[in-house]
Amino acid sequence: MQPELWYTDEHTNDVRFSMKATVQIVSKKSAVQQIDILDTKAYGRVLVLDGGLMITEKDEFIYHEMLAHVPMAVHPHVRNVLVIGGGDGGTVRELVKYREIESIDLVEADKDVVLLSKKYLPFTSCKLRDKRVGVWFEDGLRYVRGKKAEYDLIIVDSPDPYGPAEGLFTRAFYGTCFKALRDDGILINQHESPFYAAHQKSVKDAHSHIAVEFPMSTVYQCHIPSYPSGHWLFGFASKKYHPIRDLNEDRWNRLRIATRYYNTALHRGAFALPNYVKELLSGGAT
Amino acid sequence: MQPELWYTDEHTNDVRFSMKATVQIVSKKSAVQQIDILDTKAYGRVLVLDGGLMITEKDEFIYHEMLAHVPMAVHPHVRNVLVIGGGDGGTVRELVKYREIESIDLVEADKDVVLLSKKYLPFTSCKLRDKRVGVWFEDGLRYVRGKKAEYDLIIVDSPDPYGPAEGLFTRAFYGTCFKALRDDGILINQHESPFYAAHQKSVKDAHSHIAVEFPMSTVYQCHIPSYPSGHWLFGFASKKYHPIRDLNEDRWNRLRIATRYYNTALHRGAFALPNYVKELLSGGAT
Repeated sequence: MQPELWYTDEHTNDVRFSMKATVQIVSKKSAVQQIDILDTKAYGRVLVLDGGLMITEKDEFIYHEMLAHVPMAVHPHVRNVLVIGGGDGGTVRELVKYREIESIDLVEADKDVVLLSKKYLPFTSCKLRDKRVGVWFEDGLRYVRGKKAEYDLIIVDSPDPYGPAEGLFTRAFYGTCFKALRDDGILINQHESPFYAAHQKSVKDAHSHIAVEFPMSTVYQCHIPSYPSGHWLFGFASKKYHPIRDLNEDRWNRLRIATRYYNTALHRGAFALPNYVKELLSGGAT
Repeated sequence: MQPELWYTDEHTNDVRFSMKATVQIVSKKSAVQQIDILDTKAYGRVLVLDGGLMITEKDEFIYHEMLAHVPMAVHPHVRNVLVIGGGDGGTVRELVKYREIESIDLVEADKDVVLLSKKYLPFTSCKLRDKRVGVWFEDGLRYVRGKKAEYDLIIVDSPDPYGPAEGLFTRAFYGTCFKALRDDGILINQHESPFYAAHQKSVKDAHSHIAVEFPMSTVYQCHIPSYPSGHWLFGFASKKYHPIRDLNEDRWNRLRIATRYYNTALHRGAFALPNYVKELLSGGAT
């Protein structure tokens, strides 16, 4: 008999997603949460926080590209970016591909996530030492409070809205982000999955809270195989720009940024939501 | 101690997808395969063939709508349709929504799949008794051989290309379908998932085989949470029509067909594939 190592993420109480592992690299209780890093057969190295899957080496490119490139292809000139959460560095890695960006502030509540990512997750953390990047170990909500018109783009790269990240899904937080953005600023946030009943309230609440604060607010989608249902949403909220009408395809394509998921045709397609998702966002039943 | 009933679908050798079940409704060895029907907490009633998940009550609408409505919104006048596989009836249920369709031939190799679906899966089988529907218990490959220019639309609603359905992924089969279609006919086939290495060869092979036989051949995608990776592809092959240029949005919307996933904006978006999928289809590495 050969015992096997499996990591299981509970997608809901009644749905489990399991990946065969080869070795556990890290198991550490930080000041904020339990941090685990494992090597798996199908998904490569994976980061797990409080038992929930955060990123995998195999499909993190989808999540991080869709957070970063969608707003960057719309806003005509991003100079200053704030990333809240995202201590693994994957969002920063995508952002540093743009020369036009002058500064990136990364605010991560858990210092150990950044330290362990630098050591064990080079595929995401590889650009955290870029000279334009500042890393702040602080609560995101507290950091952004008091900022006035300092950023062109804020990306909320948070875990699920249970536990430490709960404050990042409130109306008060989105209002604070609005103030921290310049007059043509864009807010992007990870927006959970529309499929399982257990997650639908988070999606509805986040969307309705953002819509109160921003004149332009919509949602786009992508395929992230390791996340619950594989159908993942992001919020696009802005003071001025429309995610499709202000998409400048030629400009983005001339930058010749290498991507494995994102392209400008897919950008347009990502905003075409299924009927049941549109109903959910408009407050109807599903 | 309360033992629990769980059904597990092996997405790959190293990835497992498990759903909590309440009761097993059917467990039967047919002449073709093992057929199981279970009630689950998260996905409602599910059909399992030879241990592999076929459809679930909760997300089958996505699969069946995307098989049926994409070609129906492109072809200007479909009279005769052939559905190969799909004994659960879900594809037929979507097709009978169109008055323009005069006949639907459903060819299912396993009679027991149809009989058990009629009894236990009313949500998909509810239109199998429509007077335009003919059900044939026969091997799909054999049925279509010898047909000449009889159909406007063929939908290959097959299981995975391992075991009984293997012949439905060969070049010979696609060539036979080409002959069975009229001069402006369309072939749609379920095309597996592009994500896991274990499935990528099927995707590449199916696409390259179809491209040899049809002048117009492309692929579109959707989100099916219960299928491996949740990122599912369909093939759109045609003798004449382009899936986007010949999409008649106004005409389709005037039909007022009720759908929960499909809409004509999503139709356009579904053909915008991620870079890594485009590379896979063009024969490159991923």
